[in-house]
Amino acid sequence: MRVLAKDIAQFQETQEVEVSGWVHRIRELGGITFVILRDRSALLQLVLSGEEASGEGAPVEKTPDTTAGALTLESVITARGFPAKNEKAVGGVELRVRSLEIISKAEGDLPFQVNGDINKVGLEVILDNRALSLRNPKIKAIFKVQATIIEAFSTYLRSQDFTEIKTSKLVGGGTEGGAELFEVEYFDKKVYLAQSPQIYKQIMVASGLERVFEVAPAYRAEKHDTPRHLNEYVSLDVEMGFIESELDLIALEKGLLAHIFAEVAQKNEAELELWKASVPDAAAVQGAPIIPYDEALKIANEEAARKGNASGGGRMFDINPEAERLLCDWARREQGVELVFVNEFPRRYRPFYTYPRAARSGDSGEGLTSTMSFDALFRGLEITTGGRRQHDYHALLEVLPKFGLTEEDIAGYRVFKYGCPPHGGFAIGCERLTQKLLGLSNVKEASLFPRDRKRVTP
Amino acid sequence: MRVLAKDIAQFQETQEVEVSGWVHRIRELGGITFVILRDRSALLQLVLSGEEASGEGAPVEKTPDTTAGALTLESVITARGFPAKNEKAVGGVELRVRSLEIISKAEGDLPFQVNGDINKVGLEVILDNRALSLRNPKIKAIFKVQATIIEAFSTYLRSQDFTEIKTSKLVGGGTEGGAELFEVEYFDKKVYLAQSPQIYKQIMVASGLERVFEVAPAYRAEKHDTPRHLNEYVSLDVEMGFIESELDLIALEKGLLAHIFAEVAQKNEAELELWKASVPDAAAVQGAPIIPYDEALKIANEEAARKGNASGGGRMFDINPEAERLLCDWARREQGVELVFVNEFPRRYRPFYTYPRAARSGDSGEGLTSTMSFDALFRGLEITTGGRRQHDYHALLEVLPKFGLTEEDIAGYRVFKYGCPPHGGFAIGCERLTQKLLGLSNVKEASLFPRDRKRVTP
Repeated sequence: MRVLAKDIAQFQETQEVEVSGWVHRIRELGGITFVILRDRSALLQLVLSGEEASGEGAPVEKTPDTTAGALTLESVITARGFPAKNEKAVGGVELRVRSLEIISKAEGDLPFQVNGDINKVGLEVILDNRALSLRNPKIKAIFKVQATIIEAFSTYLRSQDFTEIKTSKLVGGGTEGGAELFEVEYFDKKVYLAQSPQIYKQIMVASGLERVFEVAPAYRAEKHDTPRHLNEYVSLDVEMGFIESELDLIALEKGLLAHIFAEVAQKNEAELELWKASVPDAAAVQGAPIIPYDEALKIANEEAARKGNASGGGRMFDINPEAERLLCDWARREQGVELVFVNEFPRRYRPFYTYPRAARSGDSGEGLTSTMSFDALFRGLEITTGGRRQHDYHALLEVLPKFGLTEEDIAGYRVFKYGCPPHGGFAIGCERLTQKLLGLSNVKEASLFPRDRKRVTP
Repeated sequence: MRVLAKDIAQFQETQEVEVSGWVHRIRELGGITFVILRDRSALLQLVLSGEEASGEGAPVEKTPDTTAGALTLESVITARGFPAKNEKAVGGVELRVRSLEIISKAEGDLPFQVNGDINKVGLEVILDNRALSLRNPKIKAIFKVQATIIEAFSTYLRSQDFTEIKTSKLVGGGTEGGAELFEVEYFDKKVYLAQSPQIYKQIMVASGLERVFEVAPAYRAEKHDTPRHLNEYVSLDVEMGFIESELDLIALEKGLLAHIFAEVAQKNEAELELWKASVPDAAAVQGAPIIPYDEALKIANEEAARKGNASGGGRMFDINPEAERLLCDWARREQGVELVFVNEFPRRYRPFYTYPRAARSGDSGEGLTSTMSFDALFRGLEITTGGRRQHDYHALLEVLPKFGLTEEDIAGYRVFKYGCPPHGGFAIGCERLTQKLLGLSNVKEASLFPRDRKRVTP
């Protein structure tokens, strides 16, 4: 019966236990072989020597495979022996081995040093050898954190009475921008990979589910290759009926992010430590500022001026990636928070389905062109886009010409004719959130098998 | 502040409450209008009349919209009023309305009767109007059950120390059968939609995660259109390291299914009732028979003979859909269970990566061509395929020629050279499990937006 490395300390020194895993490190010292075993739970020091491994006084079973020469790094082994306290060993307990079996012997030509400093390994090597690079504890930590993010996202939304949905990723066309679609040969038809479940989550609200979420891949055929873009990503989508404005959505996202951060802090303490990362606390998330677009742009430009435009940019006229970074710098310095919501984006920056902002006294005509929309910026990067959507079918039809669309293009929205509540939603980029939580320099590090313009393997 | 229909009984008759939802039904009786409101939680009777809706004695606010003529079925409304006990009303409490607002008026040309008997509506109409058909409580029930299945699948596997992964759906090729792939135009390359995360989940085991699961779409470009096929489906994938044979996987799946069924029974009592469905109990699942392929085929043929081959088929030479039904009939009659595992499939029916069955005394040469593989049959339908995989890279290379494959075709498996534990896994078709749990006649009913050879909308 196999025991996990993390549980070895629960056993008596007189109990023989069996462990299995990968050979993380091998050291020879004075005729004794020390093997660090790595399983899914932890590292464990194995001590292989005729005398020391004998435990109860029985001789170790010398097989050819137990010699250091036969053992290679990254081989899968099973070892049996007796636990022994050793303050110098990882975890404070080592296993004095009586017998050892090589389950799967690793070849010696490892493409990089799995147990070494992963910071010295280039991104392309890490991605080309994903299954090996994941064996490095620091790389594995990224995906343990990501799994917690997905779990916490789902758990929180279920607690708020959201229903999980799974919608088709093969769609007749894109409503977000036709040029950025991947085409699929679907029998005798052409279809496209969905850029987002936007229309589906909206019509699921209208279908009476009211509150829905989806965790699924989304596709953008964007040609640019930047540290913040992926052509295939995991979209954490939310849509909610009976809201009044984007402020209801921001309130929901604050609760959601606070929960995700708390879960990561609790479940991934070791993983955060490997990356020297920490998560914002709930109070900081709840206190994140909500800044209207025009004001946000002003702040970003002031922040740029304050820094003497060190980044070399001139005046910014929209919230570009540089402005996102500057806004987060400002929020961190002035308010001690790493999260900023920007709302009321001008209509020209938002899709056709975005709901207009309500008129206020003092609005000029220009003010009325803004929308009930928002972005969430976290540690310098946009991680969310969202907003209230137009639920009135006739109002939706009215704006279509401005976007070069016809009623036929939005056929899926026809259900709005049959009763649709005010609603809105948002999407969180799962990889971007992972990236920013851990401080990764490239979003591709947060995707198990990233797809970019050149990369379609492994 | 909106109150859900299901919570209305918690309020005093003197407390004014606000409800919002869809107009499910309208009845006029003696000058009084009865409106059944439907929200995400329940149905609620609203009573609209000058006298009865007055509650505390205040007169109802008569607006033009509160007249029965203005109110249409499926409109979204908000009503305020006072709760009152009424044994004849759904839920035992009705709302005596003081004011009513139409939020989104539905047009009168509903394509079918949403509040009617959905059994009288054809499948194509249901699917063409998914957002409307989902408003029928019986249709909605399907997807509430499906959401529980996905949640319970994930929760159980996390409890068993599995890590959730998200892998790419864009792959260089297929290893399960090249003819059944959808081609994607990926910039200047051709890639394909993944038929399953097979290789990814295997290499994630080899990467040291050991135990992984994934919930994601999978694609099969099969041309046949049957009640059991979808071209895009949600695959519930599992892979596990350090197993000995497929029996370890069957044990895992039994625990998993027992948990899923228990969760559905607990969370979806109302939904099961709408479909007059029940779920197998844990003891039945744990007691499900495991029958080697050859014996299963014999049983199926005996069962066919017993029924006088009423289905018109001759002798069956493999476990085809008819045999699956007959095996389940047999298990239900002989053993009182609705779940059957068939294992030890002949190699010719399984992919190249399937692990051979261990030799036994008395094996003929032919016996050795069987594999450590299995299917799970539930209520007459295969819901799972799985098995132990070949983890030895050189053994994998040896079988390739028989499958017309070369080392280059399985480049992703190269990581096995660097240490891979014995492992295996399985996948559950989410829609098929939903279908069989509720007794749906077509698997498309269990897909929100099914894709078949002709259907790519909505």
